[in-house]
Amino acid sequence: MSLASRLRSGETLLSAWSALPEPLTIEAVARTAFDAVTLDMQHGGHDEQSVLYGLGLILALGKPPVVRIPVGRFDMASRALDFGAEAVIAPMINSVEDAERFAAAMKYPPVGERSWGPFRSNAGYGERGSNDYLTNANRETLAFAMIETRAAFEALDGILGVRGIDGVFVGPGDFSIAWSNGRESNPASDALVEPLTEIARKASAVGKLAGIYAPNPDFARRYNPLGYRFITVSHDTSYIQLGAKALVDAIKA
Amino acid sequence: MSLASRLRSGETLLSAWSALPEPLTIEAVARTAFDAVTLDMQHGGHDEQSVLYGLGLILALGKPPVVRIPVGRFDMASRALDFGAEAVIAPMINSVEDAERFAAAMKYPPVGERSWGPFRSNAGYGERGSNDYLTNANRETLAFAMIETRAAFEALDGILGVRGIDGVFVGPGDFSIAWSNGRESNPASDALVEPLTEIARKASAVGKLAGIYAPNPDFARRYNPLGYRFITVSHDTSYIQLGAKALVDAIKA
Amino acid sequence: MSLASRLRSGETLLSAWSALPEPLTIEAVARTAFDAVTLDMQHGGHDEQSVLYGLGLILALGKPPVVRIPVGRFDMASRALDFGAEAVIAPMINSVEDAERFAAAMKYPPVGERSWGPFRSNAGYGERGSNDYLTNANRETLAFAMIETRAAFEALDGILGVRGIDGVFVGPGDFSIAWSNGRESNPASDALVEPLTEIARKASAVGKLAGIYAPNPDFARRYNPLGYRFITVSHDTSYIQLGAKALVDAIKA
Amino acid sequence: MSLASRLRSGETLLSAWSALPEPLTIEAVARTAFDAVTLDMQHGGHDEQSVLYGLGLILALGKPPVVRIPVGRFDMASRALDFGAEAVIAPMINSVEDAERFAAAMKYPPVGERSWGPFRSNAGYGERGSNDYLTNANRETLAFAMIETRAAFEALDGILGVRGIDGVFVGPGDFSIAWSNGRESNPASDALVEPLTEIARKASAVGKLAGIYAPNPDFARRYNPLGYRFITVSHDTSYIQLGAKALVDAIKA
Amino acid sequence: MSLASRLRSGETLLSAWSALPEPLTIEAVARTAFDAVTLDMQHGGHDEQSVLYGLGLILALGKPPVVRIPVGRFDMASRALDFGAEAVIAPMINSVEDAERFAAAMKYPPVGERSWGPFRSNAGYGERGSNDYLTNANRETLAFAMIETRAAFEALDGILGVRGIDGVFVGPGDFSIAWSNGRESNPASDALVEPLTEIARKASAVGKLAGIYAPNPDFARRYNPLGYRFITVSHDTSYIQLGAKALVDAIKA
Amino acid sequence: MSLASRLRSGETLLSAWSALPEPLTIEAVARTAFDAVTLDMQHGGHDEQSVLYGLGLILALGKPPVVRIPVGRFDMASRALDFGAEAVIAPMINSVEDAERFAAAMKYPPVGERSWGPFRSNAGYGERGSNDYLTNANRETLAFAMIETRAAFEALDGILGVRGIDGVFVGPGDFSIAWSNGRESNPASDALVEPLTEIARKASAVGKLAGIYAPNPDFARRYNPLGYRFITVSHDTSYIQLGAKALVDAIKA
Ligand SMILES: [Mg+2]
Ligand SMILES: [Mg+2]
Ligand SMILES: [Mg+2]
Ligand SMILES: [Mg+2]
Ligand SMILES: [Mg+2]
Ligand SMILES: [Mg+2]
Repeated sequence: MSLASRLRSGETLLSAWSALPEPLTIEAVARTAFDAVTLDMQHGGHDEQSVLYGLGLILALGKPPVVRIPVGRFDMASRALDFGAEAVIAPMINSVEDAERFAAAMKYPPVGERSWGPFRSNAGYGERGSNDYLTNANRETLAFAMIETRAAFEALDGILGVRGIDGVFVGPGDFSIAWSNGRESNPASDALVEPLTEIARKASAVGKLAGIYAPNPDFARRYNPLGYRFITVSHDTSYIQLGAKALVDAIKA
Repeated sequence: MSLASRLRSGETLLSAWSALPEPLTIEAVARTAFDAVTLDMQHGGHDEQSVLYGLGLILALGKPPVVRIPVGRFDMASRALDFGAEAVIAPMINSVEDAERFAAAMKYPPVGERSWGPFRSNAGYGERGSNDYLTNANRETLAFAMIETRAAFEALDGILGVRGIDGVFVGPGDFSIAWSNGRESNPASDALVEPLTEIARKASAVGKLAGIYAPNPDFARRYNPLGYRFITVSHDTSYIQLGAKALVDAIKA
Repeated sequence: MSLASRLRSGETLLSAWSALPEPLTIEAVARTAFDAVTLDMQHGGHDEQSVLYGLGLILALGKPPVVRIPVGRFDMASRALDFGAEAVIAPMINSVEDAERFAAAMKYPPVGERSWGPFRSNAGYGERGSNDYLTNANRETLAFAMIETRAAFEALDGILGVRGIDGVFVGPGDFSIAWSNGRESNPASDALVEPLTEIARKASAVGKLAGIYAPNPDFARRYNPLGYRFITVSHDTSYIQLGAKALVDAIKA
Repeated sequence: MSLASRLRSGETLLSAWSALPEPLTIEAVARTAFDAVTLDMQHGGHDEQSVLYGLGLILALGKPPVVRIPVGRFDMASRALDFGAEAVIAPMINSVEDAERFAAAMKYPPVGERSWGPFRSNAGYGERGSNDYLTNANRETLAFAMIETRAAFEALDGILGVRGIDGVFVGPGDFSIAWSNGRESNPASDALVEPLTEIARKASAVGKLAGIYAPNPDFARRYNPLGYRFITVSHDTSYIQLGAKALVDAIKA
Repeated sequence: MSLASRLRSGETLLSAWSALPEPLTIEAVARTAFDAVTLDMQHGGHDEQSVLYGLGLILALGKPPVVRIPVGRFDMASRALDFGAEAVIAPMINSVEDAERFAAAMKYPPVGERSWGPFRSNAGYGERGSNDYLTNANRETLAFAMIETRAAFEALDGILGVRGIDGVFVGPGDFSIAWSNGRESNPASDALVEPLTEIARKASAVGKLAGIYAPNPDFARRYNPLGYRFITVSHDTSYIQLGAKALVDAIKA
Repeated sequence: MSLASRLRSGETLLSAWSALPEPLTIEAVARTAFDAVTLDMQHGGHDEQSVLYGLGLILALGKPPVVRIPVGRFDMASRALDFGAEAVIAPMINSVEDAERFAAAMKYPPVGERSWGPFRSNAGYGERGSNDYLTNANRETLAFAMIETRAAFEALDGILGVRGIDGVFVGPGDFSIAWSNGRESNPASDALVEPLTEIARKASAVGKLAGIYAPNPDFARRYNPLGYRFITVSHDTSYIQLGAKALVDAIKA
């Protein structure tokens, strides 16, 4: 079952967050307890090559791969889908126009302007067949618009109304910077609870999905009940740190 | 003789289509019976690095290299030329404004705004000398605007009129999706013959070139006589499949 | 079913031959009509890295991967197994001592001296579970000793008698050079039929396997009935050449 | 002391220019007599991967790294800072609007719209701590706007007035093409002295920095006294050529 | 202070174990709580390139790097030192002759036959100066001979007596296979305690070091008091698994 | 004309020395004033992959490529020839037996045991045709045995007498360590003049070639008149250092 189907059916999915753009490490991350893997091209180290190689490995393991593109790189949104991504997260979607450009890159005509070309996702390279790809892709691959500024929050109704936008994804670090007028990056701030509750509520009201980046488990537990069901958790370097520390501590204990 | 000169003299050139972004494989593709090699950054796996390494290998073999850039990545059009490309294909040129932005990235002043910098194409790194590069580059490197939507078809006269656009290149997959309003990707559709005939006719009328992607030999044979003389054929993964199948079939026969 | 089981049950298997050490190309080769993929580290371009990445991709596609190591590099025979190879081909096994050193690297104690370490093949990284790996690996992974010199031919009985050697693999190019005392490399020579018939017959007589490199389909058809059931065919660069030529010829026809 | 602090204190810094996107070579360049290293993504061969790896190596050696992004790739300006760059040079800043977009990508709110994410520069990966990164980054990392066209020269006052633009950087090759209306690329032209003097003077007048690319030592010595204090010199391929030639000449002398 | 000095002074050092041959991941592993990093070329995925790049990154972080070479690859022992390793672990040193060949590759004349060449370790590339490298290297870099078979156990006194061998390193997986005559790989077996106690005792008696691979913390705690002071712990893929699982469990708790 | 022919005709050739295993840098080194390029796998950073890619680039530029293999890695001697090397330098050839093993890997039967396989050197991949490769390779590719210990010096007559050894190559660093019994690495020592004179004289007396590594121009000028005609000079990192320093000094002068 696709990531899209699972999220639409109400399942909560925890995704690993991959910043290290190296294939065997991506494979190791994909073998962990997480339900999905998100490759980060905005703040993480991923580029076209690491996404191309990494998506193949994640798909081979039967986990849904997701890609976060750099700001405004909608050319890469289409490429991520060609390479096999089941969802794309676009940062800094601050206006209806931003959302429309993102949706155009993500959806085939007549919904959008995504271009057709034979590669992994629609040519049998990945885990899925290609025969019905044109018919199904618009429904089975997800466009997540990041809401992480005041402008985005104010344009939220419009953004949610754009055809081809399947959900919103909150970046709490940037949101906290915006909400504090640049004073702090503090995802745990109580001041965020109200606006983030509002975002999930509005998405749900129009039948769209809500996702969020969780820097730690407490954060995930706080926001999951509010309607955030696609939750990315911490990042790969941190997994390595935590695992190594647990072993060293156990030896020195 | 440059690719530009050969095409302008009326020669038909068949180009290999490279989607696998790996140097020795690019070299192997460049050693086949094709006249040129096109590296695909839109739907294929190529990125800056594979284009940089690949163009060097193709040039060393004396074949003209061509690059298709991702949608809207005109920064990469200039870089492809710096790396040694003899032609650049830009997808989704749907308006005169798109064509003007593409031409600006492809041509030195006063025609366009291409920036000057010492690298392979103009510093003796490639197959050609650099002394006269500023003088000759605008004429000897080609800008192909892809015509693959209804909007592009309607804006065709304007696009062909943009100074610095040397020719058009048809993407029959996307064109067929557009022509069927999203119902099918079918380059072989008879419905395409009329508009594609018109495109080649108009290009020729203003002294510009016409190219096309051919998914198979029949398609190439159908559209070559209509005026399409730069024809890219199938893709590298398919060459591997076909060659392997021929051997296996011969053994099992 | 493992490659070992299929070959022991009498099945003939045709293997692709990969010389280009590049992951996506290996994946493309693994998707062809061949039953298996052999990565060549002796004359081909493969190294530790390409074998490590390539085996993972081939295993993910459900095809058995095979590795030919460089001359005398028995350290790599063990590593190829750790990386997931189902068989290893060792070139230039010209004496019983060579065969014993090869077998020692291929088999766990008490048969040989293969070292144990957690990686892909025995840690759930590949397609197979790891619980019973120590118990099963000696039987389910194959050591092919190459017979390709006069010395090897003369030592054949002894080589076949080494515990841990599962079969022989003929290199007809080197064999023809040896048979002609350095005058020619000519696998098609009729002079080879008799000794190669003898090799397959002797292997079969002691219940071991026979494989051979076939430069072309005729060669494969000639030697398969003589008992050679693991047949590697031509090489990847040639697949690309053949596929491209077929397309160009069809267009120019 | 940061690059920003040193330049603001009036120090002249000579930077190596790296076009070869290969890690050990970048490390070798970083060990030369230059004060800093600039990685070129516009005309040089650098891409996301080489910048990511290269900046880590340069930082480990205690030299300030600088990145020139491709034209209009402001997504990459933010990424370069995340990867650890102390300054970013943006080519072809030809209008106030270009400068504002560049500044937005370079500076955190409320000055700009740079997005926050944990990676090298603000997560302890580089040479500097991360605690105060949000507070200090806007001041301690530099945005250099390239002035290299007539349009840029005419918009200079406006560009220098954009908050978040820390300095200008002159590209004398393009500037000479623009000044000659496309007739020549000639950084040594005397016709450039007057406008380039004016640029440094205006930058200084508003307390901003001036940098320039020097194709050779004479050029550097000519423009340094005019106020250009961040000077990039020739390029890495040329260092190799010069060093090799000196040795060969000494042997043949 | 060098790894050699610290171990000789009686300090216990815990080393991370790196099997993933990818630079940024190596860097992440080097930033964990471990005291050192060991790159595994025998069962792990490391090759010349990953060791070359990885050692540079580990040295830059001020941690001592160690390399385990493949079986019998003494050419690589010398190269690892050239690349900056502070210790090399050689697997399957089963005889005095094996130990002598290993020592020869590790030590400069007159002790051994290590060849001199300018690269990272003795040319200022790494963290240490090069002036006195010839004088100090034999003392400051360590040769660890792996004891992991019955033959090695029986030859232990002779191996420890080889000039240039600085210590022994136990591989408990292989040792348990040997001790059980191929029946099981079980490092936790009580049957190993006596022989492993003996190994550490004998090493200490002649003033040499003892190290061991610990698959888990309990194992490390068991063998450290017996005299094993260089202890490598689990492996990088496991760190990722453990860290990810801790986060997922905390969210689902 | 091949490297072999030029050296045999008495020409002196200066070769660049490449330690940085990165393709574009190798290409840049190959474009310098040197006559040839030697890739170093013993003390330099080269591995199978960098040699494979590098030789292709050097051949494409029309310069003869040479490879120095690691100690005892005769499998790699054969592979270097397959990849296109015109000469191979083997370090630490200290006995007639070492020389015989090296020659066996370098020469086809009946002279040696080099194995035949289709790749670059004999399959039209490189600059030279393949038709006559078996006939010509033994004569047109060169085996250089390194003389760099007292043992080698004493075995010199025997080594020079081995069929298939085309010349000797002196490593003055190791030779000086050996000559000083481990006290110093000092190629400039006057104590070396007599033995090195003897080596060149003996090689010449039996019609074989003499080469040497020259750390600087003075050394090259000293030993060239003694009969050393294949001279490798300094190394690539040094070229970068020298070139950069010349520019910085010229600016600061
Ligand atoms: Mg954000
Ligand atoms: Mg298209
Ligand atoms: Mg053979
Ligand atoms: Mg410029
Ligand atoms: Mg072991
Ligand atoms: Mg030496």
